[in-house]
Amino acid sequence: MATTGKQLFTTLDADGTLTVAIEDVSFPDPTGNQVLVKMEAAPINPSDLAILAGAADLENATYTQGKFVATMPEPFNTGSKARHGLKLPAGNEGAGTVVAAGDGDAAKALVGQRVACVPGNAYSQYCVVDARSCLPLGDHTAEEGASAFVNPMTALGFVENAKMDGQNAILHTVGASNLGQMLTRICQEDGLALVNIVRKADQADLLKKMGSTHVVNSSDDDFMGQLRTAIEDTGAFYGFDPIGGGKTVDTVFKAMEQVAVKQMTEYSRYGSNQQKRMFIYGRLDTGATMLSPSYGFGWTLSGWLLFPFLQAAGQETVGRMRKRVLENLTTTFASHYKQRVNLEEMLTKEAVTDYRAMKTGEKYLVTPWS
Amino acid sequence: MATTGKQLFTTLDADGTLTVAIEDVSFPDPTGNQVLVKMEAAPINPSDLAILAGAADLENATYTQGKFVATMPEPFNTGSKARHGLKLPAGNEGAGTVVAAGDGDAAKALVGQRVACVPGNAYSQYCVVDARSCLPLGDHTAEEGASAFVNPMTALGFVENAKMDGQNAILHTVGASNLGQMLTRICQEDGLALVNIVRKADQADLLKKMGSTHVVNSSDDDFMGQLRTAIEDTGAFYGFDPIGGGKTVDTVFKAMEQVAVKQMTEYSRYGSNQQKRMFIYGRLDTGATMLSPSYGFGWTLSGWLLFPFLQAAGQETVGRMRKRVLENLTTTFASHYKQRVNLEEMLTKEAVTDYRAMKTGEKYLVTPWS
Repeated sequence: MATTGKQLFTTLDADGTLTVAIEDVSFPDPTGNQVLVKMEAAPINPSDLAILAGAADLENATYTQGKFVATMPEPFNTGSKARHGLKLPAGNEGAGTVVAAGDGDAAKALVGQRVACVPGNAYSQYCVVDARSCLPLGDHTAEEGASAFVNPMTALGFVENAKMDGQNAILHTVGASNLGQMLTRICQEDGLALVNIVRKADQADLLKKMGSTHVVNSSDDDFMGQLRTAIEDTGAFYGFDPIGGGKTVDTVFKAMEQVAVKQMTEYSRYGSNQQKRMFIYGRLDTGATMLSPSYGFGWTLSGWLLFPFLQAAGQETVGRMRKRVLENLTTTFASHYKQRVNLEEMLTKEAVTDYRAMKTGEKYLVTPWS
Repeated sequence: MATTGKQLFTTLDADGTLTVAIEDVSFPDPTGNQVLVKMEAAPINPSDLAILAGAADLENATYTQGKFVATMPEPFNTGSKARHGLKLPAGNEGAGTVVAAGDGDAAKALVGQRVACVPGNAYSQYCVVDARSCLPLGDHTAEEGASAFVNPMTALGFVENAKMDGQNAILHTVGASNLGQMLTRICQEDGLALVNIVRKADQADLLKKMGSTHVVNSSDDDFMGQLRTAIEDTGAFYGFDPIGGGKTVDTVFKAMEQVAVKQMTEYSRYGSNQQKRMFIYGRLDTGATMLSPSYGFGWTLSGWLLFPFLQAAGQETVGRMRKRVLENLTTTFASHYKQRVNLEEMLTKEAVTDYRAMKTGEKYLVTPWS
């Protein structure tokens, strides 16, 4: 007997009409190692926003109960051609209680337990997921476990990736973000140097209070000087950036090269031999990434995504990372929320406009049964 | 007793004044494994142009016998801060005859022989270089051996790098260049697929006559369609670009991703899992590289330089590459020249303006004793 419940769907039509709406859905009974999770909490992460709202014109959208219809401007509509006409679920991650299971042992063992999971349709009252991808939360609340995957595993992933590449220091371009604060705590625990770039004085204060030793404020007049000093002190020629568009990576590469050139004894028209490595793991700015010819040829820039990284890292590493997250869920890996909304409330003009702004420290939590 | 001769020097002052001039120089006697090479021919490669002329205002420069003085506009002058006030030699490579040697065995063995070398001051009547870095040319002329290093080793380096990375296909954004033609012949010999991008119909014809099977003309209306087909046919998700600035790499990444997405069975907001890899090995366009958010996160872009690559590849690989170049110097690795100029002639307005334009098939050769 199928279970019914509400679920969010997002559809972009070829003409640029974006429809995001709550629908009543029938969830299939779990089979094999599948479990049915009654979802209690799911965060709205920057990585969810692309298909939830993207660059849509929220100001002139039509809002009704459990639904909004907006226009996606160009070039974003054409850029999203691959999803035209597809009705997509949304919500990478969340937490809830296992209410039914297939007859596989892994599934049956979870019945009645609270778990964190990564269903891809977490903005829903129910999700069907593979039991082996669930993280049992023990006595933790759903709110504590809702963000147990994306940010913790990404921040840990940066540190794992840096260690694999033989690095002792990391640079992060949005130090005060939820993920940035986790990264700050992880680097402290693991003895890695960390350069944190922030945009505001209060963000710098927050990180310094947490014990971050190299915080650089991009709004300061002597930002480039501060950045060079921090890179020189830490040896951070390796970093992560979720902004993507504009000149953030360019600025970082420039500062890295200036530090490296200062340490050279002879001029080279090709720049330094110091390898400079940056990863773009998000697109908070959907403009083009601009790379100027100011740092020779000793640089590499890559996109970075959690799932391909985990796949490459292998089961043992992933298991170790998951264990560490669970053991430190309310400390190192704690997330904080500005606002709790149910499925209908998350589609109001006020809510969508607010969470799409992605302000530091203002994360939303979706509670589908409230 | 020191040898005297003429040598070119290029100096950029902090105020943006670029002075390129021939001077009489005294060359020290070679010691140890050094040899003194009487230079007979040296090509002007794109990689030489950055310090020779760069973006200087050649139209309004002052030209006198063996000298020109030009103004370097912004932002290029500030961008070259590291070389302000330095009097630099120029000319990566060339060929000549060994006329004196230190007392090392490797040096003594070369006396009287014609060699190719990479002195960094090849626009000169003499150069002092390490004998072990010389390539003895046997019966080849200096003109045949003058370009035995930069273009041949770079083109071979691309193929070696691709093989190291497990690739069976390469994409090259300037197929008809001197280097592009070498790459075309190497890929044919080694059975690697090659996608050649060109800008003009006659360039496409040239490559097709050479037997190139996947030539795509960026001036054609259906360029993107042609490019996608070529990538799909060859599996070339790995390429090299000497343009650097603008949207060349972006266009290639887009086409690669479109091919990969077409092969996916399910939509992913993160794009395909197909790894796309591009290398920028020059800056024919000194504008910013623009990367749009149109191909997910499965991409990597790096700077690529010959010398760091050779260092990483190791002595055995480099020895094998050098041997192959020497054995095929007048076939696979042949270079052609539009014009021969001596040191004074290379600093006339007509010459500088012409070779800085870097037109395909119009390379200059400097013959310091003519």
